[in-house]
Amino acid sequence: MDRIAKHPANYVPLTPLTFIKRAIKIYSNRTSVIDGGVQFTWSETYRRCCRLAYSLRSLNVVKNDVVSVLAPNVPALYEMHFAVPMAGAVLNPINTRLDAKTIVTILRHSEAKVFFVDYEYIPIASEALQMLVKGSEDSSSDHHQHQIPLVIVIDDINKPTSVQFGDLEYEQLIHQGDPEYLGEDLEDEWDAISLNYTSGTTSNPKGVVCSHRGAFLSTLSMIQGWELSNEAVYLWSLPMFHCNGWTFTWGVAARGGTNVCIRNVTASEMYKSISNHKVTHMCCAPIVLNILLEAQHYERCDMTSKVNILIGGSPPPVPVLEKMEDLGFHITHAYGLNEATGPALVCEWQSKWNLLPKDQQARLKARQGVSILTLSDIDVKNTKTMEGVPHDGKTMGEIVLRGSSLMKGYLKAENMTEKAFQNGWLLTGDVGVIHPDGYVEIKDRSKDVIISGGENISSVELESVLYKHPAILEAAVVAMPHTRWGESPCAFVVLKQTGDVNETEILAYCTKNMPKFMVPKKVEFVTKLPKTGTGKVLKEELRKVAKTLGLSTNTTTNSKVRAMSRL
Amino acid sequence: MDRIAKHPANYVPLTPLTFIKRAIKIYSNRTSVIDGGVQFTWSETYRRCCRLAYSLRSLNVVKNDVVSVLAPNVPALYEMHFAVPMAGAVLNPINTRLDAKTIVTILRHSEAKVFFVDYEYIPIASEALQMLVKGSEDSSSDHHQHQIPLVIVIDDINKPTSVQFGDLEYEQLIHQGDPEYLGEDLEDEWDAISLNYTSGTTSNPKGVVCSHRGAFLSTLSMIQGWELSNEAVYLWSLPMFHCNGWTFTWGVAARGGTNVCIRNVTASEMYKSISNHKVTHMCCAPIVLNILLEAQHYERCDMTSKVNILIGGSPPPVPVLEKMEDLGFHITHAYGLNEATGPALVCEWQSKWNLLPKDQQARLKARQGVSILTLSDIDVKNTKTMEGVPHDGKTMGEIVLRGSSLMKGYLKAENMTEKAFQNGWLLTGDVGVIHPDGYVEIKDRSKDVIISGGENISSVELESVLYKHPAILEAAVVAMPHTRWGESPCAFVVLKQTGDVNETEILAYCTKNMPKFMVPKKVEFVTKLPKTGTGKVLKEELRKVAKTLGLSTNTTTNSKVRAMSRL
Repeated sequence: MDRIAKHPANYVPLTPLTFIKRAIKIYSNRTSVIDGGVQFTWSETYRRCCRLAYSLRSLNVVKNDVVSVLAPNVPALYEMHFAVPMAGAVLNPINTRLDAKTIVTILRHSEAKVFFVDYEYIPIASEALQMLVKGSEDSSSDHHQHQIPLVIVIDDINKPTSVQFGDLEYEQLIHQGDPEYLGEDLEDEWDAISLNYTSGTTSNPKGVVCSHRGAFLSTLSMIQGWELSNEAVYLWSLPMFHCNGWTFTWGVAARGGTNVCIRNVTASEMYKSISNHKVTHMCCAPIVLNILLEAQHYERCDMTSKVNILIGGSPPPVPVLEKMEDLGFHITHAYGLNEATGPALVCEWQSKWNLLPKDQQARLKARQGVSILTLSDIDVKNTKTMEGVPHDGKTMGEIVLRGSSLMKGYLKAENMTEKAFQNGWLLTGDVGVIHPDGYVEIKDRSKDVIISGGENISSVELESVLYKHPAILEAAVVAMPHTRWGESPCAFVVLKQTGDVNETEILAYCTKNMPKFMVPKKVEFVTKLPKTGTGKVLKEELRKVAKTLGLSTNTTTNSKVRAMSRL
Repeated sequence: MDRIAKHPANYVPLTPLTFIKRAIKIYSNRTSVIDGGVQFTWSETYRRCCRLAYSLRSLNVVKNDVVSVLAPNVPALYEMHFAVPMAGAVLNPINTRLDAKTIVTILRHSEAKVFFVDYEYIPIASEALQMLVKGSEDSSSDHHQHQIPLVIVIDDINKPTSVQFGDLEYEQLIHQGDPEYLGEDLEDEWDAISLNYTSGTTSNPKGVVCSHRGAFLSTLSMIQGWELSNEAVYLWSLPMFHCNGWTFTWGVAARGGTNVCIRNVTASEMYKSISNHKVTHMCCAPIVLNILLEAQHYERCDMTSKVNILIGGSPPPVPVLEKMEDLGFHITHAYGLNEATGPALVCEWQSKWNLLPKDQQARLKARQGVSILTLSDIDVKNTKTMEGVPHDGKTMGEIVLRGSSLMKGYLKAENMTEKAFQNGWLLTGDVGVIHPDGYVEIKDRSKDVIISGGENISSVELESVLYKHPAILEAAVVAMPHTRWGESPCAFVVLKQTGDVNETEILAYCTKNMPKFMVPKKVEFVTKLPKTGTGKVLKEELRKVAKTLGLSTNTTTNSKVRAMSRL
């Protein structure tokens, strides 16, 4: 039984490249990619990928070389998700909202061999490359660490500007490539396919390396878990550089669907695409729901059929969910991270919930849900004892994951990798509860939990109460040192209309709407909250401010370590 | 990039056992299995599997031991699909329609350590065991080859008969087991999970060994390709012993669905289940469609919603498809084989086909379709040159497959395994064409192709013309030796009413409806066709008859070898 040898026919490395090779066979004439006036079929997209992969090989790109790209959701970035691994290389999509300094850190750390730059991002890329060259000259003794990548510009595919930047131009590479090139043979499914740097609200970005195996499995899970039908029309409202578009870069090819690219995630662009191309699916951060809801009348379009939206990140408030459903959007909540090669939990809907009142439905929908099918296991654990928390919807613990769709590890960071994988689990750093029905709900980042007099307070929960106050536009709560309680909550609040409400009134509102130990000890009014390029609130900065506002001057220890040891 | 080591958290063997472990966490209170008056929840089914696995270990069942079972679609057989691999062993479900001699061949070849027998199959099992014991005594020098398995009887779960047979009783094992047993650790996803003997229309049955990896991938493909929704209610009209129920034994657990077991595939049992349990999905051989269509009025029930049927085997005639759709069944055609761990092709529907006339829709639906997502590649090839045939819907070739969901190989048959895997492909022995849209249509078993004057004649195609004749109930066409043409078609025909039509009339009908070279040289009227236990026509027997009817007495060489060398 166990002496049967593997054959090349029955042991083939798992890779999402299979999906586009299958697409060319059975979906060849269907529309693959739309960007404004430009359209491709799957046959064309595949040939473009073959050409690009060939050209990359001609440029001496070899196995495990990193190909970085700074671009919005354009066809080129989509194509690179296939072409770069076809050349045996590793795709590194860079967040377009990063500053030049962080881009340099990434190019340097990843030792990028090629750097593709969309024409709109030439200024920041140029700044980054100057810093990189300067750094390289300053440390010429250590040449390998600071290689300068080959720079290739991506021009506007709709209205080419003929801009000159770097060494080569994208369409020129396509033109020079061989459309019959089959790509390099993948020897091992454990080989790297992509390198995605985490946005890093606190520390230097970490390079998450994903394998072909992980990407293949994660993609399968997502098209299955979200029931992405064949003939799906997928709107790119989620940046492809976010975790490879949560695997849907590869997933749309697997279903023979159509990718609708948009450069800017504006209400009018989204509604126009939905209406013109009959969009069926889109992913986004919760903030995009607000953009859709707050659209002006003239920006909107008639929606002829339901649009499925998969959202990640923090749960949107119940009223937002309700309003979106009323507009004709069907929202599914998911939870993922780069380290999981995309989503790890999806809030699988149960038909019996259709009978519940709308607000209860929205509450159920705000939960992150159940593990995707290709994860081997998930749990919420007390990380001190590694015991699972009871399924009571109350006891908080850290969300831990296990399975072959997880990342390989962090690039050149063995220590961090070892720290992330403990006792056979990936520690996510996110704090949640498990409800009696087995659904997970995230309460906080573990480092954002406030521990007051031994009680764990979820900053997210406290914020969601504040969000319901009619005068409050935005709120963020962090720990503030407190002599008696150790820590207590400090709320930073942005009002819709300045001066509408004062601290005492907000505290009274809180006292009425939450347990006493949760009530903030301080409310600080600000005009805006500090945020990362991806729109995440920079709580670390707020904590610094809170420290100065604190009722005592205790020094807090590293909050993440502390929170985890107390859970 | 390639020096990142695997961790127990991120490199977990792929296995369908994951699905039931996930089901207990999130679907624990949903109904898992229904059999008459007996119902279980996923929590109960999982605990029963743990108990059974524990008991098997107590009986010294260890890794790679074969556990055989002769049972219809009862909860015990469903549970064994999880419990046996949980114990590290390999499940061998035996076709209940086999004769005692073949069962002995299987028990002997597989070296079964345990043999579960459903109470209804005691007579044949008893006969087989007597033959096995006798064989063992006759060759006592070679003890290991003829071990006698431990025999465990499965009593009726609805109305226990307290029958005594063999060494132990199934529910007793469940009772004695440990519900908290976690199962053996799976070290390698390439380990065997099941052993399924092919029905073998011509030769001795071959033992197809499937891996955990293959079963996991195949299951994922099928629940995705057939869009098995969560909350599916799955009727077991397909025997679980057929390729592990085409992977749906594991697939229903993956979706938290409900298994509806029936002992006998009768019209009234099926309609009753559909109506009582609101069945959403079922699989079956095409013959089952006739059973459903020919049901008496009193056997039928109202169908409140669409029932999805996945059919395998030969394509049903267009009128059958049309009538089924009218009744409220939605039919999807698939093609698979034990060697592919279930289906390999599924006829993925395209919405634009909804606009076509019904008969054209039925014709498209009769095709076997496109590769499932976890196969790496499929093709139709001239096996002499290994060139792919043109996508013209006409040129025939052998269907070949490649991918990690294929079998490991045949048990103790290295030569046959090597013969099945050639040039990096699994040769299926089935002959088909590829249509311009990339969809594959099967034309015949390669050994059933008739080669007349250098022309390939598909016996299936010829039969489908005969089936359309109003007087014909059944038809089967095989090669008959012919001095001039080498071979020519010989048709065996069962009439609805004897004497309704004669040979000349049928030949005239053929001449009108097919190319001249395809017209049979002989029509033989019979009262019934010889068939295997699974309802496949035994063409080998018809060929023997055809030989005696032949216009010449040429000896034909082995038809499969010949057909392949000519394709």
